[in-house]
Amino acid sequence: MYKVFNPELKDWPTLMRRPLHDLDLIKETVDEIFKNVKIYGDKSLIKYSKKFDKVDLKNLLVSDKKINNSQNDINPELKESIDIAFNNIYKFHKSQIFKSKKIETSPGVFCWHEKRPIENVGLYIPGGTAPLFSSVLMLAIPAMIAGCKNIVLCSPPNENAELHPAILYCAKLCKVNKVISVGGAQSIAAMSIGTKSVPKVNKIFGPGNQFVTYAKLKSINYNTAIDMPAGPSELLILADENANPDYIASDLLSQAEHGPDSQVMFISLSKPLVNEVEKCINDQIRILDRRDFINKSISNSKLMFFDDKIKAIDFINQYAPEHYIINTENESFFIDNIINAGSVFIGNYTPESVGDYASGTNHTLPTNGNAKQYSGVNLDSFLKTITFQKISKDGLLNISKTVETMANAEGLQAHKNAVSIRVKDL
Amino acid sequence: MYKVFNPELKDWPTLMRRPLHDLDLIKETVDEIFKNVKIYGDKSLIKYSKKFDKVDLKNLLVSDKKINNSQNDINPELKESIDIAFNNIYKFHKSQIFKSKKIETSPGVFCWHEKRPIENVGLYIPGGTAPLFSSVLMLAIPAMIAGCKNIVLCSPPNENAELHPAILYCAKLCKVNKVISVGGAQSIAAMSIGTKSVPKVNKIFGPGNQFVTYAKLKSINYNTAIDMPAGPSELLILADENANPDYIASDLLSQAEHGPDSQVMFISLSKPLVNEVEKCINDQIRILDRRDFINKSISNSKLMFFDDKIKAIDFINQYAPEHYIINTENESFFIDNIINAGSVFIGNYTPESVGDYASGTNHTLPTNGNAKQYSGVNLDSFLKTITFQKISKDGLLNISKTVETMANAEGLQAHKNAVSIRVKDL
Repeated sequence: MYKVFNPELKDWPTLMRRPLHDLDLIKETVDEIFKNVKIYGDKSLIKYSKKFDKVDLKNLLVSDKKINNSQNDINPELKESIDIAFNNIYKFHKSQIFKSKKIETSPGVFCWHEKRPIENVGLYIPGGTAPLFSSVLMLAIPAMIAGCKNIVLCSPPNENAELHPAILYCAKLCKVNKVISVGGAQSIAAMSIGTKSVPKVNKIFGPGNQFVTYAKLKSINYNTAIDMPAGPSELLILADENANPDYIASDLLSQAEHGPDSQVMFISLSKPLVNEVEKCINDQIRILDRRDFINKSISNSKLMFFDDKIKAIDFINQYAPEHYIINTENESFFIDNIINAGSVFIGNYTPESVGDYASGTNHTLPTNGNAKQYSGVNLDSFLKTITFQKISKDGLLNISKTVETMANAEGLQAHKNAVSIRVKDL
Repeated sequence: MYKVFNPELKDWPTLMRRPLHDLDLIKETVDEIFKNVKIYGDKSLIKYSKKFDKVDLKNLLVSDKKINNSQNDINPELKESIDIAFNNIYKFHKSQIFKSKKIETSPGVFCWHEKRPIENVGLYIPGGTAPLFSSVLMLAIPAMIAGCKNIVLCSPPNENAELHPAILYCAKLCKVNKVISVGGAQSIAAMSIGTKSVPKVNKIFGPGNQFVTYAKLKSINYNTAIDMPAGPSELLILADENANPDYIASDLLSQAEHGPDSQVMFISLSKPLVNEVEKCINDQIRILDRRDFINKSISNSKLMFFDDKIKAIDFINQYAPEHYIINTENESFFIDNIINAGSVFIGNYTPESVGDYASGTNHTLPTNGNAKQYSGVNLDSFLKTITFQKISKDGLLNISKTVETMANAEGLQAHKNAVSIRVKDL
């Protein structure tokens, strides 16, 4: 592990560098996928599933029967855990409902806004090394609360052309309308263009590999919005001498197991803690299954010491971590001054993995410094705001000169005229 | 004008077609601009301003002195109008502040979220046929309320290498930090990459021509977010026999004067009103200055009659207008059932132009059907949400089995271990 003490400002950009993929290299593949999905529709989805996922798909759509019976295929303990997680995530996202007030900006001029659901949303659930059913809860619960009319879920099937029953059970709980066993860039292309089996959606959500990420960016050209550009997952932990090095190591390792390109950063306000954490990582790593991934991502990790809390928070804000654990005596300084982060975990008993599954917050979060300009997925991600205004006769009289003068100065005579033609009748 | 009565469902897509540009045609130009701005920085901005705006720029940055004295260069009536508009827009956007609640999702598990400003934002103000100083208010007021640290404004200069004093006065009112007299795709490239004079920003806002639109889409690849993809402006009016045809015509014409590619749509619930409105348009058009633009955009317009209010609202939701005027006796049906629209104007005395300038709502709105998935610019556009969680010892004990079971089922052993290692100490 790379260790550094009080790094100089000039070295910060290097320390913050993410293990990124060059999206240009995969552009050609994804461009071709979009072209073929547009021309051949479902046929090309079957072809690409064979090519990339090594499966012969008879049906793209998972049957209602399969979804309805999914709970019989998972053990009762897992079902109960999913139900508890569902409730917590539901409660927190339900609390995000915003009631707008009607504002009288000038006498007789009333303005307000209302949020309405995005009607058709597409959720992407990665397959790969783990069946990430928890992401179904994170995306479909706010979609359900928002009132989205059509919730479409795409996920790559296993070698038996099936989705994990826990994915189907979560989809059932969240009233997902269509589950499609297609993954990768081809599923993103299908949701942005529309095929016989896959409806065109208005917005696409969810994490994925670099092919999925590039496809999501491309979908914007097809009148489709996306939640955010996704990249490899990351965690930054800030701790002082009050923290338990074993706990810190366990959190860093939990992040590191996501994939070989995950990034873990540790900022210590205590010098001895740096070596203690390193030792705990080396101890714990030996018993973990996903050692290969972990060793690779740990090799990208940085253990840092800062003797100045202002420099530490500056570094954190410039890095803009997806996950940010605060484990210090003086928490409030590091809570109040965080500007750029996805989700924040406070104290000794709040490991990141609780937020990944069941605390109630969302785990679909901005990576790669995107926390500077993007929110994690939340209820508002599935709504859009419409503004309304209604003006009385007196209201129009009050404001008419203002509008006429401004329209005139912008050289927009017809804008002015729309007011004048009414005022002359008042 | 194209008139149609009770159009069949199969003809709706044709009626809804926007007068769109093919962005592929301008791709090469914009790609080259980004390449040169990245290599040559300010020098290429000067070169492109000469090429596209026909000006020799000595300074890219507008001086503080020029900004501070701007109010002396506009007439007092315009200054007063801008001040009134500022107050209304400020009031409405201030009302959008959301106070989050701390939620205890399970005993001992506390979750909440807070909104923090996007630190560096870039505002694009088009020049061209009119100095659109009102857009400065619309973008910079919510940025100021959000608390954005650096507000950068780019706008193309006139032939004297200057910006309109009203643009500078609005920038001053809204505490814009840097005003740069560069426009077009080159200014978007500069804000997404950063040059000596133009700081790199986290998010770019504002309308523009197709070069600016394509450049904004491209900026997403440079870790920059955008407000929305912009297209030509549009208005849909819905009215019945209670409406005044002269008022309707004046609103349609005010939209039509934006540019030759603007689109105006009229849906009437009364058959005679269709011809009355057409007559009023022909009468009013004769005295308007921007007749050339207006004639072109009116030729793209559609006057429609629907005898069924359900079909009418279905059509409107499928079209997803940027601006939507409701002028009917039974307003509430058309208010309650609108799902896709940017901004809504209700009644006889609420012309669109009042919302364009001074009612208080924002005029930066989704076009080209993007109202299906994007909000207009609002306070939240300048903020991002960070989630927080803090769990007590008891809270972790309560939820530990849930997290351990789910992590195990997803094959993420280190995620499970981060909980188990703490629980064994409790």
